[in-house]
Amino acid sequence: MNTRDRILDVTTELFRRHGYNGTGLKQIVAGANAPFGSVYHFFPGGKEELGEAVIRRAGQMYLEVIEAIWDAAADPRGGVRDIFHGAAAAMVETDYIDPSPIGTVALEMASTSEPLRQATADVFESWIGYSAARLEAAGADPKRSRELAIAVVALLQGAFVLGRALRSPEPVEAAGRAAVSVVAAALTR
Amino acid sequence: MNTRDRILDVTTELFRRHGYNGTGLKQIVAGANAPFGSVYHFFPGGKEELGEAVIRRAGQMYLEVIEAIWDAAADPRGGVRDIFHGAAAAMVETDYIDPSPIGTVALEMASTSEPLRQATADVFESWIGYSAARLEAAGADPKRSRELAIAVVALLQGAFVLGRALRSPEPVEAAGRAAVSVVAAALTR
Repeated sequence: MNTRDRILDVTTELFRRHGYNGTGLKQIVAGANAPFGSVYHFFPGGKEELGEAVIRRAGQMYLEVIEAIWDAAADPRGGVRDIFHGAAAAMVETDYIDPSPIGTVALEMASTSEPLRQATADVFESWIGYSAARLEAAGADPKRSRELAIAVVALLQGAFVLGRALRSPEPVEAAGRAAVSVVAAALTR
Repeated sequence: MNTRDRILDVTTELFRRHGYNGTGLKQIVAGANAPFGSVYHFFPGGKEELGEAVIRRAGQMYLEVIEAIWDAAADPRGGVRDIFHGAAAAMVETDYIDPSPIGTVALEMASTSEPLRQATADVFESWIGYSAARLEAAGADPKRSRELAIAVVALLQGAFVLGRALRSPEPVEAAGRAAVSVVAAALTR
């Protein structure tokens, strides 16, 4: 793996554990086994530009994961259920680090850094747009598909907050059942 | 207001904008118009002990707000709807700072500080327990009331993440409608 990718991987992992402000450039270069100046070589804007790249890359990666799970599922209820099951399992396996670095950075930085806020907004909009399109294709009312998709993404993000605080998969599982019931109600209407 | 309360108020506001790691003791004492040593006078454990006090105080304050809204509402659906309406209005009025400092600190600090993680867990459990009891009193199946309450709290916390990123009340409003429909379905079963 090249140095730039190692820096992105290490920073993603550090953000998942400690958030943006809790992660220092020294930890990043030490973890990536890279010289200190390499962050500025690859990301001339420094930590903010690196953070934006991490958010956008993680957002795209999770969009592909969501697509793959949805494609493999028999129907939208199964897709939503499997997304939450996968997230709950990931939290247990990783000792309750955040499944994604994006929510933490959104909460920490939305009032401080416009580039970081915009990156988190673009990621969430991409997930909402994709989910709304899948729900609409499955028969959801086009007027309600965006609202439904927002609720599903909010349940997932909120469950990460609660699961991390409670050190338990219970919130992600409970949120998953609520997401399935909200989607099922919209599709049988 | 006494110095200790001013420190708690200022720290709460700073956490809502910048999170735990983004808030410095210098900002806190400057904002509270207090001498630097006063933080250690009132909170001998320093920023971590102050942070824990902020989380527990904000959690209690929001529990009282939730109780008051629920008491004033005609039924549980109305209570849930009004809680999300109030949160959406608060976000618009405050230029999308976080309505509560608790979710941010949970995401940032759960892997780093056990006292802070425990404080956020205790707050979320108090909200979940209170909401579950209200739902049960309104007729929800006792076996499902905790799961329902978790879903409502997850929707609220997740909507704060999305609302802050998108700078819009739309996620809190969409999550609120989903919360009302989940609660209504549980009560008419």
